Amino acid sequence: MKYDSKRLMKFATDLFEKAGMPTLEAEISARSLVEADMRGVGSHGLMRLRTYAKRITTGVVKAGVKPSVVRDKPASLLVDGKNGMGCVVALDVMQLCMKRAEETGACFAAVYNGNHFGIASLFTVAAAEAGFIGLALSNATASVVPYGGAVPKLGANPLSVAIPSGRRRPLVLDMATSVVAQGKIIQANKEGRTIPEGWAVDAQGQPTTDPAAALKGSMLPFGGPKGYAIGLIIQILCSALCGANSDPAIPSFWNNFEDPQNLGFFLGAIKIDGFATPEQYGGRIDALMDGIKACPPAPGVAEVLLPGELEFRNQDLAEKQGIELSDPIAGDLRALAGEYGVDGGVFG
Amino acid sequence: MKYDSKRLMKFATDLFEKAGMPTLEAEISARSLVEADMRGVGSHGLMRLRTYAKRITTGVVKAGVKPSVVRDKPASLLVDGKNGMGCVVALDVMQLCMKRAEETGACFAAVYNGNHFGIASLFTVAAAEAGFIGLALSNATASVVPYGGAVPKLGANPLSVAIPSGRRRPLVLDMATSVVAQGKIIQANKEGRTIPEGWAVDAQGQPTTDPAAALKGSMLPFGGPKGYAIGLIIQILCSALCGANSDPAIPSFWNNFEDPQNLGFFLGAIKIDGFATPEQYGGRIDALMDGIKACPPAPGVAEVLLPGELEFRNQDLAEKQGIELSDPIAGDLRALAGEYGVDGGVFG
Repeated sequence: MKYDSKRLMKFATDLFEKAGMPTLEAEISARSLVEADMRGVGSHGLMRLRTYAKRITTGVVKAGVKPSVVRDKPASLLVDGKNGMGCVVALDVMQLCMKRAEETGACFAAVYNGNHFGIASLFTVAAAEAGFIGLALSNATASVVPYGGAVPKLGANPLSVAIPSGRRRPLVLDMATSVVAQGKIIQANKEGRTIPEGWAVDAQGQPTTDPAAALKGSMLPFGGPKGYAIGLIIQILCSALCGANSDPAIPSFWNNFEDPQNLGFFLGAIKIDGFATPEQYGGRIDALMDGIKACPPAPGVAEVLLPGELEFRNQDLAEKQGIELSDPIAGDLRALAGEYGVDGGVFG
Repeated sequence: MKYDSKRLMKFATDLFEKAGMPTLEAEISARSLVEADMRGVGSHGLMRLRTYAKRITTGVVKAGVKPSVVRDKPASLLVDGKNGMGCVVALDVMQLCMKRAEETGACFAAVYNGNHFGIASLFTVAAAEAGFIGLALSNATASVVPYGGAVPKLGANPLSVAIPSGRRRPLVLDMATSVVAQGKIIQANKEGRTIPEGWAVDAQGQPTTDPAAALKGSMLPFGGPKGYAIGLIIQILCSALCGANSDPAIPSFWNNFEDPQNLGFFLGAIKIDGFATPEQYGGRIDALMDGIKACPPAPGVAEVLLPGELEFRNQDLAEKQGIELSDPIAGDLRALAGEYGVDGGVFG
């Protein structure tokens, strides 16, 4: 079933407000979830609303706090996220980086006392739409082995970069540093399918195609030793640099409503016009992207896509035709509306 | 056969001087090649000396030029590399970034009119050893398909990050964004071996395990769509941002001694002490690295390695025991000594 995106946005905003958030925070939080569903990233969409709301009502995440700058250089900031809502804190800090970079050319912030920040592209696309290269990284509960290791030491440590792109929408990378999201293994397990080799190892570190064994084991880093190194660098930037929790000590988003996660973020903005005029850059990036789009596709492939292109198409389609939600998720959201006393009419 | 690293360093420095370089440039250029061999990265080692020297003597690369800053913000720089030797220009610009970041916390530079810069870790390790997170990127002649594409549109676009690491040597990532270096396919072809699936496609974009077909085709990006996006981002930062050549227009390092490459670099330094005191950071990074090293290895694996650990071990061993060079390479270097009239006694 498809549901109107604007009505879902209103519903989620109302719900976050009822959970105790100021209006602006509720709107940002709702947008994070609704945009994830629109872009086809259901794992970070409204299926998380119940847990996010519970984290606010139990007080394990704080509504209405303002991150504060603890160390301050013109192009680098250490920020205390004050255990606020992850996406609210990260967007606030990204805006601060952009304001600084407007003057200095670049600014990076390391944030501690953070919480799960949802889709990282929310922050990087905001930067790219304002003329910056945006970078957003976070650590996460350990689920990934180091290359050659048997037990998880790294989170799925997301990496997002967005870059302004002339006459096109921004180029957007938003990825986990594991081969696949754990959700795909959970889904295969539910449906009784095996998983491809190379996704995961069992509890002894042996490669496995059995999703049940994989869920007791660990995910593999994407791209072998290269992806392992990238995931580890993200972990360093998001924990050792700022003093946030280092895996595997990070309390679960889903099950722990007592201990703050104290996640770390590393956010940055680099202004394009420090390097080129808008005309220079626009002409060059258009030509480069045109060249990629003109690449003959491999046999069996319809079209070569730019990073983020598919997600923008999903988003445009969802805006016109509504957001597809599975019946169990829609049912849970309808129930949630009742529990919080907000209008759940969008669910019929 | 093994050869003394100090004598090789002297030989290569002498040779670069005879080719027309000032002493300091010759030393940096020699160090780039000798260190590559010491670290086990022979593809960027002394096997390139003949071609580097020829590029100087033919004047397609300029000796004795100084890069100049063209656009200047406190934390971002556009630099004209003046067609100087790649490693000399990149080290110079990295030092400028470090000087700026000492004050501002971070500084990034986009460089045009660059040339092949050798091992990228030369610049990032210099940054890490001085207390910075170092970043070095370059574009390269097109050899890699976009994900789902049939023809090469991207270079192997190297990515290096080095991070200070408490009581250990810096953590160093230095990688191509293709699955493997093309040299491995050339080697398999010479030895009549097939290559694993997933390395390359043939000229029609079909997956192939035939190295000859792969050499007529293209390399695949590491990590599928994720590595493709990372490689494309590097390409943007190293061409559209600074106006350097965009692939596939880049003249070959090996065969073109008339047209300057006009490669682009993107270099950056972020100062650790903008985020933490040395004591805070040192304690945390040591604990994090200890945790990775303590990870039980997967069955059949001897030890979990940190990024760059193997290369530092190689380097230490080569310093003690000498650098292993194949007979054809040593023979070529001996001949080169004769051609340039420098002491080739190290080769016996």
